[in-house]
Amino acid sequence: MSEDASATSRRNLMAGAAALAPIALIPGGAEAATPNRGALQRVVESQKDDTVARLRDWIANPSIAAEGVNIQGGAEYMARLARDAGFANAQIAPTDGSPGVVATWDVGAAKTLGVYFMYDVKQYDPAEWTSPPLEGRMVDKPNLGSCIVGRGAVNQKGPETAFLAALHALRAAGRQPPVNLVLVCEGEEEIGSPHFQQVVQQERAMAALRRADGVFIPSASQDPSTGGVTLTLGAKGIIECELVSSGEHWGRGPAHDIHSSNKAMVDSPVWRLVAALRTLVSEDGNTPAIDGWFENVRPLTQRERELIALNARNTNEADWKRRNGVRVFIDDLPWQQALERLASQPTVNIEGLVAGYTGPGGKTILPGRAAAKLDLRLVPNMTRAEAERKLNAHLQAKGFGDIVVNVTGGYDPTETDEHSRIVQAEVSVCRRLGIETTLNPRSAGSWPGTVFTSAPLSLPAAQFGLGHGSGAHAPDEYFVIDSNNRRVMGLTGAVMGYIDFMYEMAR
Amino acid sequence: MSEDASATSRRNLMAGAAALAPIALIPGGAEAATPNRGALQRVVESQKDDTVARLRDWIANPSIAAEGVNIQGGAEYMARLARDAGFANAQIAPTDGSPGVVATWDVGAAKTLGVYFMYDVKQYDPAEWTSPPLEGRMVDKPNLGSCIVGRGAVNQKGPETAFLAALHALRAAGRQPPVNLVLVCEGEEEIGSPHFQQVVQQERAMAALRRADGVFIPSASQDPSTGGVTLTLGAKGIIECELVSSGEHWGRGPAHDIHSSNKAMVDSPVWRLVAALRTLVSEDGNTPAIDGWFENVRPLTQRERELIALNARNTNEADWKRRNGVRVFIDDLPWQQALERLASQPTVNIEGLVAGYTGPGGKTILPGRAAAKLDLRLVPNMTRAEAERKLNAHLQAKGFGDIVVNVTGGYDPTETDEHSRIVQAEVSVCRRLGIETTLNPRSAGSWPGTVFTSAPLSLPAAQFGLGHGSGAHAPDEYFVIDSNNRRVMGLTGAVMGYIDFMYEMAR
Repeated sequence: MSEDASATSRRNLMAGAAALAPIALIPGGAEAATPNRGALQRVVESQKDDTVARLRDWIANPSIAAEGVNIQGGAEYMARLARDAGFANAQIAPTDGSPGVVATWDVGAAKTLGVYFMYDVKQYDPAEWTSPPLEGRMVDKPNLGSCIVGRGAVNQKGPETAFLAALHALRAAGRQPPVNLVLVCEGEEEIGSPHFQQVVQQERAMAALRRADGVFIPSASQDPSTGGVTLTLGAKGIIECELVSSGEHWGRGPAHDIHSSNKAMVDSPVWRLVAALRTLVSEDGNTPAIDGWFENVRPLTQRERELIALNARNTNEADWKRRNGVRVFIDDLPWQQALERLASQPTVNIEGLVAGYTGPGGKTILPGRAAAKLDLRLVPNMTRAEAERKLNAHLQAKGFGDIVVNVTGGYDPTETDEHSRIVQAEVSVCRRLGIETTLNPRSAGSWPGTVFTSAPLSLPAAQFGLGHGSGAHAPDEYFVIDSNNRRVMGLTGAVMGYIDFMYEMAR
Repeated sequence: MSEDASATSRRNLMAGAAALAPIALIPGGAEAATPNRGALQRVVESQKDDTVARLRDWIANPSIAAEGVNIQGGAEYMARLARDAGFANAQIAPTDGSPGVVATWDVGAAKTLGVYFMYDVKQYDPAEWTSPPLEGRMVDKPNLGSCIVGRGAVNQKGPETAFLAALHALRAAGRQPPVNLVLVCEGEEEIGSPHFQQVVQQERAMAALRRADGVFIPSASQDPSTGGVTLTLGAKGIIECELVSSGEHWGRGPAHDIHSSNKAMVDSPVWRLVAALRTLVSEDGNTPAIDGWFENVRPLTQRERELIALNARNTNEADWKRRNGVRVFIDDLPWQQALERLASQPTVNIEGLVAGYTGPGGKTILPGRAAAKLDLRLVPNMTRAEAERKLNAHLQAKGFGDIVVNVTGGYDPTETDEHSRIVQAEVSVCRRLGIETTLNPRSAGSWPGTVFTSAPLSLPAAQFGLGHGSGAHAPDEYFVIDSNNRRVMGLTGAVMGYIDFMYEMAR
């Protein structure tokens, strides 16, 4: 998922506090909500090797929407995983793009929980990894323990496998889930979920989701230094697009690459792209300058500012900067203001530039085509449709109507009330386990929660899960299996967290 | 060679003129300068298969300086080619980069001819070719005949092989070359000849070149529609460089790629590069805007304008546009003014842009690094040193001192007098063969002629050769072997052209 990795590294407020129990010993309080929790945990533990084997096999079978890799196969694999976990009714849901999967499990409970899975993963370059990205090798990491390393380990196959393991464990213990379940899965999350709406709108999914009290996507949310969990109440929207300048479409410059000496009499589509890009942002590249971009931007509320201030106090700026290789923030902002900017500001980011010759050394060509890959993050109350319209209108107005805007995906911002049942259940699960929770008003990253939080469903939707992992979209992505860090759950703790969460939602 | 392909397509002034003899039948006039020309031509013809085999083998063994491919091996191959052609004294000339080759052949003649070879070729992408770029496959091309297709076929191995074949033929006919020869070869022409000066400055090369009446590089200069030859009296200089913006060097933005959601609080090295690039040129990308860039630019002389006007009348604008996929020139200039701009204006061209994710689809990252590959063409009396200094000073003055400028190669502009012996010899050879010549005051492309034309050598230096080929730096590069176009020489005609040229220089 395009999740923001920021602000999850909390300063350890409880450091040195003897009161913090090692989490391997579950505090007795957790028993209150999950019946016979100790017995269940023994089942989960006994199934751990099978769970890891399942995760490793899934990592070995990646689906990559951007590259068209293993699309149909990935969906079938996903449906099989759901069936194996107990969903009797798990079916492929065709869309205009990669197929989704819709699985329902009606246990006759009073409550229904919606679950959102992505079965696709981000691209990877094996040359950048220290162990093969599809191998799922177990690697010991300092202060964490034994981790599985592979593409998708934390984003999102690890946490999703842990959720499915919770269902396997309940069945092995002779129980049914305490809530009805509806699982909606997509294979295009990493390209901006262009067809996920089509998955959710299928009548079987819709009928089940209408009864749900909320929807969540499994994630590994524990901070490695504190064990705390940040519960995020919303996320920015996004448009991903490519801006393409070409001689072919412009009618000036060459239709294909020609010898660079001709620049003296032939226009350059590359320079044209540079000029067009330059109009999209302020001189420092930090503020969108697209006509009307801020028209519907809602400033942070007082409550959002309070939560950010709390978050700033409880998170470690130096640690964040070290991990991200960042020395100073925009305008040299202090941590709290940087986090406010992170939550409140729309962005126009260049993910990639590609024109002409990109190999080693040079090549004397005047390229016929240049492209910029952009992602534009949207804050409430901007919408994807508005942003797409305004971007095109801006280019037109600035005289760059020939620049082609290919939007590959995107969705509106999403927001969930902190008082919603799903958020309160997450807080309760953590409280029982002695895990500190922090509310984050908005992730600067994006996930298609709007599919659930907007009409017609208008459901609360959130991300939740214990355990820890990192490296989403980066090399050496990992997920902790056997924790040797007393503040962070391993796989068994993560699985138990989902069991606790289902029982909490069932109340 | 970084040769300008423009203005070589002459309108056929003599179209339909019965006076134009098929060039397969060499007009008797050519006999005047080359003794027993008919006998020699039979020798050349008898050696044709060997010559083609030699060219094919050379194509199969490319040296690519930008990629570090076959550097030492390419130099040794070059030295062997020279020795096989009769240069008793052909030796590797080490430099700080790829080694050159210096070969001398003192036949005791009154005159000495300098010859410049490049043994390196441009990069290629086999996926773009219709036959394998290293195979040297013979392909029939309409209105041309049988052509060898391969990387380096015309740029520059075909013409160079034809020149060596002239020496093989003379020897087989029991003759020595009519001039002393000094051959200087480099393996870095395609990256801007960063060390060619070191090859020429070696004492053995210098001693021989000081006696030379001029230097030339073999080329295939015939226009396929007229058979005419454009003799180019100079060429622009060039700097090739990479501009790199990075968080590491800037001290702002990330030191490596991070999740794009962080754009809201972290600066972007990519946007910084875009802003810096934008200051280098006018808004339309067509006029350099680097501080002081035009200070030493010498306007076209009256004679240069006359030659360009003549050239414009004798060349086919529509044909040029069609071949280059160009609909209109800069500012919608008419042909003659476009050619004046081509000859007279310095350029700042973007050869390539590369930042972040460049594969299919998108990837939500904020890249830590962005690079633009530039070539800047220089006109008299600009110098490479001046341009490099001014580019750096400009970036500094505009506040972009953190952008790193990596200059990979380049040299000053070069000029040769139209009344020099070497140019007049070229005109004479063509005249005897009934081939129309056009003088082009300056190629918009570049070649390191300045190594010869500047002090201390101050020799006239030019490009010359009959025959035809095209596709330098592009896929499906070719060189005509057996012409079925009565206006264009095949390989044998090209070889004879070099024999005629040597006898002409010997007079």
